[in-house]
Amino acid sequence: MTTTTLAVDCMGGDHGPAVTLAACRQFLESHPEAHLLLVGAPAALEAFQHPRARVVPASEVVTMDDHVEVALRKKKDSSMRVAIQQVKEGQAHAAVSAGNTGALMALARYLLKTVEGIDRPAIATQLPNAKGEATTVLDLGANVDCTELHLLQFAVMGSALVSAMEGHDNPTVGLLNIGEEVIKGNEVIKRAGELLRAAGAAGDLNYHGNVEGNDIFKGTTEIVVCDGFVGNVMLKTSEGVASLISGFLKEEFSRSALTKLAAAVAMPVLNALKRRVDHRRYNGAALLGLRGLVFKSHGSADAFAFEQALNRAYDAARNNLLERVQSRIAHARPLLASAAGDAPLETATH
Amino acid sequence: MTTTTLAVDCMGGDHGPAVTLAACRQFLESHPEAHLLLVGAPAALEAFQHPRARVVPASEVVTMDDHVEVALRKKKDSSMRVAIQQVKEGQAHAAVSAGNTGALMALARYLLKTVEGIDRPAIATQLPNAKGEATTVLDLGANVDCTELHLLQFAVMGSALVSAMEGHDNPTVGLLNIGEEVIKGNEVIKRAGELLRAAGAAGDLNYHGNVEGNDIFKGTTEIVVCDGFVGNVMLKTSEGVASLISGFLKEEFSRSALTKLAAAVAMPVLNALKRRVDHRRYNGAALLGLRGLVFKSHGSADAFAFEQALNRAYDAARNNLLERVQSRIAHARPLLASAAGDAPLETATH
Repeated sequence: MTTTTLAVDCMGGDHGPAVTLAACRQFLESHPEAHLLLVGAPAALEAFQHPRARVVPASEVVTMDDHVEVALRKKKDSSMRVAIQQVKEGQAHAAVSAGNTGALMALARYLLKTVEGIDRPAIATQLPNAKGEATTVLDLGANVDCTELHLLQFAVMGSALVSAMEGHDNPTVGLLNIGEEVIKGNEVIKRAGELLRAAGAAGDLNYHGNVEGNDIFKGTTEIVVCDGFVGNVMLKTSEGVASLISGFLKEEFSRSALTKLAAAVAMPVLNALKRRVDHRRYNGAALLGLRGLVFKSHGSADAFAFEQALNRAYDAARNNLLERVQSRIAHARPLLASAAGDAPLETATH
Repeated sequence: MTTTTLAVDCMGGDHGPAVTLAACRQFLESHPEAHLLLVGAPAALEAFQHPRARVVPASEVVTMDDHVEVALRKKKDSSMRVAIQQVKEGQAHAAVSAGNTGALMALARYLLKTVEGIDRPAIATQLPNAKGEATTVLDLGANVDCTELHLLQFAVMGSALVSAMEGHDNPTVGLLNIGEEVIKGNEVIKRAGELLRAAGAAGDLNYHGNVEGNDIFKGTTEIVVCDGFVGNVMLKTSEGVASLISGFLKEEFSRSALTKLAAAVAMPVLNALKRRVDHRRYNGAALLGLRGLVFKSHGSADAFAFEQALNRAYDAARNNLLERVQSRIAHARPLLASAAGDAPLETATH
């Protein structure tokens, strides 16, 4: 593969083409072998001229509030759907959208189907850690009420993601749990721990053991698996704490003439801090477990953030993420099958 | 009640009497009507002389690593157990311990029993929010695999706690949930939402609706309820993010001679920030739903932090927290009973 093509849902997100096209322009400049399919309303996109970009028309837009059913059954010519369709038809190596997560996951699943051996796709993102690296966490909200088998599947897929994106062949996996003596996790978590230990012993992954919420930010393991409910609360909590501290910092530095002077002196340091905790750098969550690559940008992404999502999708495609997921899942299939025999999946919901 | 007496487990926590006695000394100076029962090894405590403090001997110590069973069945003369026993016997209005949470909860439950109408005690703590106030969150890890009825009980107990400690008669309650379109919570959360709405309509609490992880730190509601697994992950995550940012800040300010100068100029502001996010100020979690008041300090608490736990226990006793919990539960009993009829509790585990 000499060129890599991304299909971009240019209409998605809070800002639409104003942000997505600016990001596409910058992305094309930094990646001389990349091609883009700009999916959306031709009138909104035709001003964008680039030898490695082409408009693919789509007449509808899935809004941030649209229900999954609307995206699936009504808006059959949405930019989100047409972008994923490009991946399905082999026109693009990956699709990127800042549109609503529920609709994106449902459409991706409907059009691309899941990889054999995977019951539920997962959403994986990166969070900064004290080692100056990033911890990959999944699931971030695609699945609630996960079984232990789902958590095992997440661990296998997360390992494929990190090996593709970071070049670490055998990344460490932690199971998000709680440390109090009285409980040590609910029943699903206990059984998931057993499965993950078995997978570690079988060479399907590098299992570290239980980790707690703070270990994500210490970087204790490269991958942390959890169910989507817990993962989503964790993600929103981390955003909430970061905002709170940043708000306090602003308040304290603007309290008086003296503190404002201190802020001016400290500005280069504060800007360096801001860069380090800038969540925009980590934008671009992978939808894993599908027969095609789809990346999700934050809806509120600006051009810089959306460009990071394009970068991640590009890297994933270049590093054969899809094949890596499929080969890891295939390797783990005997274990997945025997675990599924022991603990049947609830399949009613999918 | 003109005097209020606290029973202090002086041997608990990572530091034992070195920290607990220093905190007791300071506490007695600030509270001229308070009396203390200093529970522990007489040899370790006898140097402490105060007209309003008295040593209650206990020959054993529950360590941070002791299993619940050891605390319950073996160490029958532990300082933790004897402190709780003082509450049971009416010698003290509340007990405070920095010992291990699992053992403390198990002993408290065994000795004091739960309030009628409560199946499971919960651990409630406070976290700082952007309004400059504190958000009360429960459960923090006493219970995993909660049913919707447990979440309703937490909401009722949390309301009693906030009304006792903050003087707000009708504090707002949020249900911790996730915002993604695709799911909107698991089955338990959905049913809990229905129960909480019914409780709001019945005047048993002031139900706001769903909140997300970041709302805790915005202060969207005064109380947030969640199951203990999610609550524990949330708490550890918030600690992890705060440490990460503080670590980054230190690194950036010590990078060069210039940034060190900036740190010196900005020091008063950074100290003000440190005070605002100082988790020691929020030390002292309430064990709610028992027929007696027990407060849990962080195991790693220093004297300042342990003193805050004493303060909270003292305020709770002075403001009749126990009676408030019982009266709120009694008021909500018809609702609790009908909900229990609709959705039977799993009682096998307690």
